[in-house]
Amino acid sequence: MENFKKYISEINDFPRKGIVFKDLNPIYKEPKIWKEIMLPLEKLITTSKPDFIAGIESRGFITASALAFKKEISLITIRKAKKLPGQVIGVNYELEYGEDRLEIQEGLFKTNSKVLVVDDVLATGGTASAAGKLIRKAGGILIGYAFILELTKLSGRNNLDSKILVESVLKY
Amino acid sequence: MENFKKYISEINDFPRKGIVFKDLNPIYKEPKIWKEIMLPLEKLITTSKPDFIAGIESRGFITASALAFKKEISLITIRKAKKLPGQVIGVNYELEYGEDRLEIQEGLFKTNSKVLVVDDVLATGGTASAAGKLIRKAGGILIGYAFILELTKLSGRNNLDSKILVESVLKY
Repeated sequence: MENFKKYISEINDFPRKGIVFKDLNPIYKEPKIWKEIMLPLEKLITTSKPDFIAGIESRGFITASALAFKKEISLITIRKAKKLPGQVIGVNYELEYGEDRLEIQEGLFKTNSKVLVVDDVLATGGTASAAGKLIRKAGGILIGYAFILELTKLSGRNNLDSKILVESVLKY
Repeated sequence: MENFKKYISEINDFPRKGIVFKDLNPIYKEPKIWKEIMLPLEKLITTSKPDFIAGIESRGFITASALAFKKEISLITIRKAKKLPGQVIGVNYELEYGEDRLEIQEGLFKTNSKVLVVDDVLATGGTASAAGKLIRKAGGILIGYAFILELTKLSGRNNLDSKILVESVLKY
């Protein structure tokens, strides 16, 4: 997998000064590379058998949708505040500066529905942790997290439930 | 295709009073239905052979990514202002209230690259038209648009180039 890191662009001072942003867009432009990188996540789905894949807005939609459509698993969307129509369930969570909110629609899960949360990058784990809380609040069984890329120095894993799966394909 | 309309929720007064929002989320929750609904768009890709599928943030990412990953076509992301890292090309466009902006990254296209723009819903066509302009500004050949759903009463088609493909699966 180390060979694939050349398809990740690093952009200095984005979105803020001092941050080196890892851009996955070059991967999506190379279908063969993208396919290879997704194989470990497809395997995770085959073995863990989630009933739902939950994608986090908006870059997480790219990975979650590709996986859900290919593996024929139900896709649900976790969105920022006020983006989803109808009755929603929400959780607020802390950011470095201020607070944010994620929401999902009500009534998604039958009893014992197994849910895998998918995003593109695991950084501090704040968003992923909030997404996991949201799944549980909505009555789903959170079985794990899947990411394309993990920034291991930020120790995001430590903010996630240590008793469930946390899979990332490329580690920095 | 009319049978599939029962998988579209209608939500009154979202996102604003007086609007009946068509929610596609129930489709994504039913993998077999989702697959059937995507068949005409897959066929469009097979026949029109785009080099790139361009998905519009953020709901458009769901359809664009599923199609691009399955058909093994390069995916590019069209995003709101300041979301994409690196050098970008942008277009501003008018909304009902105020203005908005779409951006893509620079240097995506080789000469004669064929691009299909994908979003979930064609409403007034304002966003789709701006996305098309952006593709051309960036040097791509805009070969068409693909949507899951079209609100025909809003005549969004009339805002799009009449000489290129405009495909929608479900028409209201």
